[in-house]
Amino acid sequence: MQNPVPSYAHALRSLSAILAKAETHCDDRKIDPNALLTSRLFPDMMTFTRNVLVTCDTAKGLAARLSQTNNPSFEDNETTFEELQARIAKTIAFMESVPDAAFEGAEQRDVVMKFGPEERTFTGSAYFTGFAVPNFHFHMTTAYNILRHNGVEIGKRDFLGAN
Amino acid sequence: MQNPVPSYAHALRSLSAILAKAETHCDDRKIDPNALLTSRLFPDMMTFTRNVLVTCDTAKGLAARLSQTNNPSFEDNETTFEELQARIAKTIAFMESVPDAAFEGAEQRDVVMKFGPEERTFTGSAYFTGFAVPNFHFHMTTAYNILRHNGVEIGKRDFLGAN
Repeated sequence: MQNPVPSYAHALRSLSAILAKAETHCDDRKIDPNALLTSRLFPDMMTFTRNVLVTCDTAKGLAARLSQTNNPSFEDNETTFEELQARIAKTIAFMESVPDAAFEGAEQRDVVMKFGPEERTFTGSAYFTGFAVPNFHFHMTTAYNILRHNGVEIGKRDFLGAN
Repeated sequence: MQNPVPSYAHALRSLSAILAKAETHCDDRKIDPNALLTSRLFPDMMTFTRNVLVTCDTAKGLAARLSQTNNPSFEDNETTFEELQARIAKTIAFMESVPDAAFEGAEQRDVVMKFGPEERTFTGSAYFTGFAVPNFHFHMTTAYNILRHNGVEIGKRDFLGAN
């Protein structure tokens, strides 16, 4: 398959720019950044911070799984905008270290997914379109929606980034 | 390119099942369906109903543009769960009427996008990954988030559908 990294690195750079706007929003209004970082749309949903981490890990996982590259494990200890920016940067750095050639034939490669105790095997193509793509956008959109719900002035153009 | 319709028809069927749960939620609790249908996460964001319509139109548009099939225009007059279900059904019916062969070579075909008065031309591939895919998931996720924010009991499994 075509290397999917450029699209997802592009989206993560858009997410980084959105985080920068959220941080400026807090600075300008003397808002405690934790008010945004720990915000959720409902008590049993993920916080903003957690959605950013899962967005990063979904992108990292798709690059690793489809290219059969070792998936580096990052500790989930980010609690500030600065630390989230560093997490996004190291995620992109890993993704962009995978050569185009490693994705050749990825459509047909086995990808094993764990659902609790159960394991299921999908083709690379089914994993990508059925899990990786919707999950990535789900968590990035939810992070965006949490900021919008809290009044941060961002729009669809920020979400899509410059194309 | 591989026919993208099966993935997006699958997602629209998941959206349809989510709508059915939202309607049942209203029935069970004697909630006016409009409380959900007109809900937004912020005053200048789209309502639930509008997000469902844009999700449908993004899917319809990608099937039409990439296959160079005439894009049928549907009136945006849905105001009930039942009407939204019919909109989803006719969107899927159109998408599934496009033959696989019509997507051959779509990566390199020109797709013209309008941004206000400005027109820009993208390859099919750049249109698909840069606009269609993120926009589709953005609006479907926002519809889902509006329901979750209002306490409808749905989860990621509903969002992804059975894979």
